[in-house]
Amino acid sequence: MSILGNFGETVKEHRNQLGLSQERLAELCNLHRTYIGAVERGERNVSLKNIVRIASALGITSSELLYNIEGCAEIDQSKNY
Amino acid sequence: MSILGNFGETVKEHRNQLGLSQERLAELCNLHRTYIGAVERGERNVSLKNIVRIASALGITSSELLYNIEGCAEIDQSKNY
Repeated sequence: MSILGNFGETVKEHRNQLGLSQERLAELCNLHRTYIGAVERGERNVSLKNIVRIASALGITSSELLYNIEGCAEIDQSKNY
Repeated sequence: MSILGNFGETVKEHRNQLGLSQERLAELCNLHRTYIGAVERGERNVSLKNIVRIASALGITSSELLYNIEGCAEIDQSKNY
């Protein structure tokens, strides 16, 4: 899975553990519900500020949220992002 | 200090510990030297993919790179990013 896919899965797991809907998480972060949905599907290359906001809304640090995010994802240094 | 300022300082500390120039770090990440300079000055809201690339080039995980990034920075959920 990709880095963005891993991140999305991690956000979803934490959200579900807290019993939050995507809508409620979006409210807590002051982000749009459709954005949270896209993040969870691995469709957004999330910015640092939004990583921190999402982590804060989930009650964890951004470091905890990114724990093992590299997992089995290859880090492709060749492409330009 | 802001989240982006904390992040920039952390990147700079790790880079200096490795004795890397901004130019060399940029080469390792396949990013532009001026981008790395702006990141270190806290002027870039870095994306997740670039956080992972910078961490990988520094030989650490993104979770390690973001350790204590919240530090004393206020997380402003009101503004939209």
